[in-house]
Amino acid sequence: VLRSRTLNELTGIDVHLKAEVFQRGGAFKFRGAYNRISRLSSQERDRGVAAYSSGNHAQAVALAARLVGTSAVIVMPQDAPPEKVAATRGYGAQVVTYDRYGQDREEIGRQLAEERGLTLVPPYDDPVVMAGQGTAALELIEEVSDLHALVVPISGGGLIAGSATAAKALRPEIRVIGVEPAAGDDTRRSLEAGRRIRIRVPRTIADGLQAPIPGELTFEVNGRLVDEVVTVTDDEIVEAMGVLFERLKVVVEPSGSVGVAAALSGRIEAAGRGVGIILSGGNIGASRFADLVGASPAR
Amino acid sequence: VLRSRTLNELTGIDVHLKAEVFQRGGAFKFRGAYNRISRLSSQERDRGVAAYSSGNHAQAVALAARLVGTSAVIVMPQDAPPEKVAATRGYGAQVVTYDRYGQDREEIGRQLAEERGLTLVPPYDDPVVMAGQGTAALELIEEVSDLHALVVPISGGGLIAGSATAAKALRPEIRVIGVEPAAGDDTRRSLEAGRRIRIRVPRTIADGLQAPIPGELTFEVNGRLVDEVVTVTDDEIVEAMGVLFERLKVVVEPSGSVGVAAALSGRIEAAGRGVGIILSGGNIGASRFADLVGASPAR
Repeated sequence: VLRSRTLNELTGIDVHLKAEVFQRGGAFKFRGAYNRISRLSSQERDRGVAAYSSGNHAQAVALAARLVGTSAVIVMPQDAPPEKVAATRGYGAQVVTYDRYGQDREEIGRQLAEERGLTLVPPYDDPVVMAGQGTAALELIEEVSDLHALVVPISGGGLIAGSATAAKALRPEIRVIGVEPAAGDDTRRSLEAGRRIRIRVPRTIADGLQAPIPGELTFEVNGRLVDEVVTVTDDEIVEAMGVLFERLKVVVEPSGSVGVAAALSGRIEAAGRGVGIILSGGNIGASRFADLVGASPAR
Repeated sequence: VLRSRTLNELTGIDVHLKAEVFQRGGAFKFRGAYNRISRLSSQERDRGVAAYSSGNHAQAVALAARLVGTSAVIVMPQDAPPEKVAATRGYGAQVVTYDRYGQDREEIGRQLAEERGLTLVPPYDDPVVMAGQGTAALELIEEVSDLHALVVPISGGGLIAGSATAAKALRPEIRVIGVEPAAGDDTRRSLEAGRRIRIRVPRTIADGLQAPIPGELTFEVNGRLVDEVVTVTDDEIVEAMGVLFERLKVVVEPSGSVGVAAALSGRIEAAGRGVGIILSGGNIGASRFADLVGASPAR
């Protein structure tokens, strides 16, 4: 958990950052993947696992599979960041690619799993995966007990569902605030409408937050436990990445920076109070970072 | 203290990184400056302090002065990184600039101090400053007791003199290894010659390691306690910065990366053994990082 006088001054909030960038695989995803894969039966372990992912879940499943001693096949979009593809292969997984804007990754994943008898490890819509991911908030609240609010990025909704479950159990009065990219606010819209709304795959620099519709299981949990969803623009994300780099000396990918972006943009109402923010991942290459932040006209 | 499986695999060493990038002011320099400035007499405090610095010592003196409640005048090179100048002014110090390749900063600093009755806070050649800086190694060894070697960047030699003093007192058998930029190996040459040798101000991306001659006091200590000095090229520094960014998610400036550069280049002989490396600072702007690492042909 990182703290920064500068960030507190810039936001007017007492910020506690849960730095999942230092997690194995560079993101919170390992928590859910390992929780699921470590519970395979010995027969399932013999056959292996499959997963579909825009990147961090892929690495997490590949790494967890290696640690548990099973094999992994990962379905990744063709335009996934090359360092994420390389890292996934580096953990020993087989990578199968698809077109993010044309094909349905869930369908491809399911087909692969059926054909080869693999166990599908969903990125979020699974109780064991959600529970594992929620240990990020569990650890944060065990370390900082008196938080007024908890701020969590939302993609499919697994991290915030698990985190809200843990947080509200330990501290019922805590306010759970989700953050989505402005272009990909499917959960915000769905919670307002009271039903799951599918949007077009959002074009945003937050490549980990491009799920077009909330998960079934996550939506049920989040409808009960999430107090508010706010959104941030890509420019606000870039600004947050710059502040995290220059002032906190920590590398956070676009998707992982949305909580700090919301705080810097004044969208977290908690003046002077303790707020936990999950920096969900730090997997970004130096050249991509340079393109986004180093030459940003917004900065 | 950070550890990384990846870095251990890449170097073949069991690496323990003392991350001074998270220190106040973003570098180890605060340790020495605060140790000195907190000991001013009340008369000295009324008159204020002066310092000359290529950057991190400037911020450290400015910050320590503000905390102690005194004023600071800082002599900085005209081509110091703009974010370091801005941060120094941001702490409330007055900045006076000079030409790094033409004028003598020590002379300017001394003159200023005399004219205005200020107490000069040297960047390294002062026993109280050296002792303060050495607490970086003190803390590292208190946390990791069985290190085979300690790797420390060398500029004027204060950090390594203080660190070697602390390290050898706690663990006499520890090997203390200094690292200099290949273009600025004044301490390596001086230790070989047995006397202080002045070189031309080195042109290297490691802007914090450009001292052209070892300090008088530091050289005496380092001659007794430093076991070896190795050098690294600018390309090796850029490579190390990239690995620290992409794999460890931590922002380290060129001068702070030389220890990891030496380990990645196979210049630290300690196969499989515990080695402490001081990441001495992390003050680098995103655009400078982008220029150096994001578009590096070496990577």
